[in-house]
Amino acid sequence: MCSLPVPQEPLRRVAVTGGTHGNEMSGVCLVQQWLRDPGELQRASFAAVPVLANPAATAACRRYVDCDLNRVFTSTFLTARAHPDDPYEVTRARELNQLLGPKASGRAFDFVLDLHNTTANMGTCLLVKTTHDIFALHMCHHLQVALCPQSAERALQNPELPFLVSVDQHPGEETYDMTSVAKNGIGLELGPQPQGVLRADLLTRMRALVAKVLDFIQLFNQGTAFPAFEMEAYRIVRSVDFPRTEAGDLAGTVHPQLQDRDFEPLRPGAPIFQMFSGEDVLYEGESTVYPIFINEAAYYEKGIAFFQTEKLTLSVPALPALAPTPSPGP
Amino acid sequence: MCSLPVPQEPLRRVAVTGGTHGNEMSGVCLVQQWLRDPGELQRASFAAVPVLANPAATAACRRYVDCDLNRVFTSTFLTARAHPDDPYEVTRARELNQLLGPKASGRAFDFVLDLHNTTANMGTCLLVKTTHDIFALHMCHHLQVALCPQSAERALQNPELPFLVSVDQHPGEETYDMTSVAKNGIGLELGPQPQGVLRADLLTRMRALVAKVLDFIQLFNQGTAFPAFEMEAYRIVRSVDFPRTEAGDLAGTVHPQLQDRDFEPLRPGAPIFQMFSGEDVLYEGESTVYPIFINEAAYYEKGIAFFQTEKLTLSVPALPALAPTPSPGP
Repeated sequence: MCSLPVPQEPLRRVAVTGGTHGNEMSGVCLVQQWLRDPGELQRASFAAVPVLANPAATAACRRYVDCDLNRVFTSTFLTARAHPDDPYEVTRARELNQLLGPKASGRAFDFVLDLHNTTANMGTCLLVKTTHDIFALHMCHHLQVALCPQSAERALQNPELPFLVSVDQHPGEETYDMTSVAKNGIGLELGPQPQGVLRADLLTRMRALVAKVLDFIQLFNQGTAFPAFEMEAYRIVRSVDFPRTEAGDLAGTVHPQLQDRDFEPLRPGAPIFQMFSGEDVLYEGESTVYPIFINEAAYYEKGIAFFQTEKLTLSVPALPALAPTPSPGP
Repeated sequence: MCSLPVPQEPLRRVAVTGGTHGNEMSGVCLVQQWLRDPGELQRASFAAVPVLANPAATAACRRYVDCDLNRVFTSTFLTARAHPDDPYEVTRARELNQLLGPKASGRAFDFVLDLHNTTANMGTCLLVKTTHDIFALHMCHHLQVALCPQSAERALQNPELPFLVSVDQHPGEETYDMTSVAKNGIGLELGPQPQGVLRADLLTRMRALVAKVLDFIQLFNQGTAFPAFEMEAYRIVRSVDFPRTEAGDLAGTVHPQLQDRDFEPLRPGAPIFQMFSGEDVLYEGESTVYPIFINEAAYYEKGIAFFQTEKLTLSVPALPALAPTPSPGP
């Protein structure tokens, strides 16, 4: 496995972004609260910056105004000449690229933690862009151990345990999400929570997760070494659309036996959709997969009823301690 | 109690409306399915007409485009001269008034059943405009008995039992909702379901409820008499807003001990909100109330965290059989 390089210096420039999707309320309200009172985001070696990523969509309580902000952080959009007819989110991505990037430059922020909710029954989910990102994997493992100390080694047996999902991109494909403007980052995805609703239980859970992410960065910055470990992860392999009529309308929906079963095994022959006409549609794949983002509201328009993932066991090498910073000369 | 007059003739003109709010997917998808294949809506004495109430909001998967359609069926809006700058929903309300009304006229439809979802944990809820509407109360009781034959007399003890909620208006206040264009109507409110999500379980439940409503009208039309009964009902008495900052942003959210407890008793001194700063806000009323629509997404912008209701026991008089229709002369 070809690992990405790990940071060689303390992470000083860290941001926590919420409202990348304006109707995902846990991150929206936490960031609004931290903009009023940022004390919670301070650590000894750095202070994370709260950023409300999509203020217009947040004000309208919609995922986006013109297009999905979390898909437009590509060099094509970020470097094109600005035009008055640009979608709001493209303009906003350029602003965020100025604030937290520029993407792929030495001046970019060290880390962005991006806060999301899903209507799917995903529990606590940590999204990384690749299973080769040793630093991010250690952070996720730290969250698992910190939140579920008894069960971190037993992975799925504890429903409170955060799941790790890798959104591996195709070779050569450019990253496009909010965190990609920074040198590194992960997404937190908590559910189920309806769009436009703020549940106290998810807010509390997200707040605790953010604190643990910052604690991990603090530990790393102060020279902690982290030993090797094994962990389970889920890699997205493909998406599956709803059954539709010729006109493109829904012709059925997620089967009751699949609904709310994110991360559970889906075996060949099991029902996945229930047609309005009454019949069941069965999963015809050849191998067991692990569906996630089952019946996520925002994905209807993207033609996605759920994602199929494969389950992996990752052997993650140790994360060495930072070399001590040379003390200033006499 | 001053009862509304009951129908003296069979109900021939019946409509089932979905998509009054374009992101409440159970009604949207059922109506779309019935527009393709209306067989399910036929009974011996009538055929109900499926109506997609807000096509533009449905296409955008939003509650509304310009304003809440379910609030604009007032004579002010319906009779004002049309203007190109009218909100989309005002124009659409006039169209629906032509199709299903005119409101308060002899030509109006006999009955409109309006289909809704809520993000709140409301289970199955039947909304009537007044506890004086004998016909609607008999229909609701019929649904309770048909869906829960063992428990209809035991009201709250069965969680599957539909709750009856009365949105009593103030004396002299004009009705404004979708069903008000017809001579009579009720709303079905099923939850919890996120906006923009179609759950198979709620779809199946709503479909069964619609069938039972049509069955009741068929029974009434064919001369069935319905005996008197007692039933529990919840009358909305006031709304309660979220705690907010001076700027109007949320300063806290529904307390975990209140979340999902729709229709359960809320006693003085119990927590209702959890502030972001950590403190609890307690219910300071003097009597037990029964909160509903707790943390409904669409009500944030209306300044409503939940409604307080009072619990009533209604004594509903018998619904007499229709007088036999004179047979055609020789």
